[in-house]
Amino acid sequence: MWKASVLTLYPELFPGPLDASVLGRARAERLWDMDTVNIKDFSDNPYGSVDDTPAGGGAGLVMRADILANALDSVERKDRPVLYLSPRGKPFTQKRAHKLSRGPGFIALCGRFEGVDARLIEARQIEEVSIGDFVLAGGEIAVMAMIEACVRLIPGVLGSAQSLGVESFEGDLLEYPQYTKPRMFENKQIPDVLLSGDHGRVAKWRLEQAEEITRTRRPDLYQRYLENGPIRRSKNKER
Amino acid sequence: MWKASVLTLYPELFPGPLDASVLGRARAERLWDMDTVNIKDFSDNPYGSVDDTPAGGGAGLVMRADILANALDSVERKDRPVLYLSPRGKPFTQKRAHKLSRGPGFIALCGRFEGVDARLIEARQIEEVSIGDFVLAGGEIAVMAMIEACVRLIPGVLGSAQSLGVESFEGDLLEYPQYTKPRMFENKQIPDVLLSGDHGRVAKWRLEQAEEITRTRRPDLYQRYLENGPIRRSKNKER
Repeated sequence: MWKASVLTLYPELFPGPLDASVLGRARAERLWDMDTVNIKDFSDNPYGSVDDTPAGGGAGLVMRADILANALDSVERKDRPVLYLSPRGKPFTQKRAHKLSRGPGFIALCGRFEGVDARLIEARQIEEVSIGDFVLAGGEIAVMAMIEACVRLIPGVLGSAQSLGVESFEGDLLEYPQYTKPRMFENKQIPDVLLSGDHGRVAKWRLEQAEEITRTRRPDLYQRYLENGPIRRSKNKER
Repeated sequence: MWKASVLTLYPELFPGPLDASVLGRARAERLWDMDTVNIKDFSDNPYGSVDDTPAGGGAGLVMRADILANALDSVERKDRPVLYLSPRGKPFTQKRAHKLSRGPGFIALCGRFEGVDARLIEARQIEEVSIGDFVLAGGEIAVMAMIEACVRLIPGVLGSAQSLGVESFEGDLLEYPQYTKPRMFENKQIPDVLLSGDHGRVAKWRLEQAEEITRTRRPDLYQRYLENGPIRRSKNKER
């Protein structure tokens, strides 16, 4: 079973939002699981502290390599990658979520304060991963996002009512706009083509919309779509 | 006071992880606040449903514009921007977090299912924002990340022990590596320069490390640093 193990100073925050809705139901059905390790349990002092002042000076506190190594070594790896949530990391993407969702899960280390001693990253071959170009107070919410992105891709987690078929980043396109009843909302109608019943025209309109939205909002993605589009789209179908 | 109002189908998830650690303490001290609106309260049917099938066909359900408009119109705006968390949105960045943290807060709409009727976005001038190039099961965890990124920048939220001085994305650089005691960890020493007591050499080494890490990991940021670096760095000092 796919499983995430999270090393944190705040184990009480988990599963938290991951226990709601489809993910909560899927966990009850044993389609995935998670557990936490309280880093404080590996403190070597009566205060339970796990950090110390930065070598070379500066504000804040750095989490100690020796304590984190002991916490990490207490977890059964089971071929899972060890990830450290950090704004310095490699950007987490939908492609990575797909890859991780097909594996055994992951072990994630949540930093707080000024981060962790750099020697730990090297000594335990930890991969630094970032969910975006912003700074959080800790890795906890970031790892929740990663777990949610991965788990929803595990077969059976999303019911038949919820589709993985067409969504953003598949084939490097953002998703086309969606509409539903009522037909008229504040003088705005649902576009005629969507009410035509002509599946071919609907599909063509949606692709054009997705291309246009991607081109104007995310020229970086659109460039990749132009370069790889048709190949990637057929690959996606095989998944 | 800075305030986030979150429209969601899962109000029970909030404040959740936002109640831990420094953010929790800061909320108790009235440095920021948040509330939720349960979208289900604006359903027009005895089942409490807020969605319907997509116009034009396709799997999943789309959240209805009329119900969401009523939910949104129930919230006092107080000059706050209305954001919709969506992978189709503009990428959320540290720069945006700074800007939002200096304002009155924001109102955020969390989608579920296949998203919201596109007419709502236009009719209420909602800005679509994305925390990263991956797909979540809903906007809840994404808005938690945004709130955390903004609130920690509000003056007084991080104590004197935790610094905003040097961190990733300020001046377009990723942060330099940190070290702390013990001096020797599994045959790896803290770099000598950090133990030299020479503040000038330490500062120079840290800048070189930050530049090298940014150059190798994030050529996109490094390019911006080369173009804007010195100007941005002096701007940051004025903040």
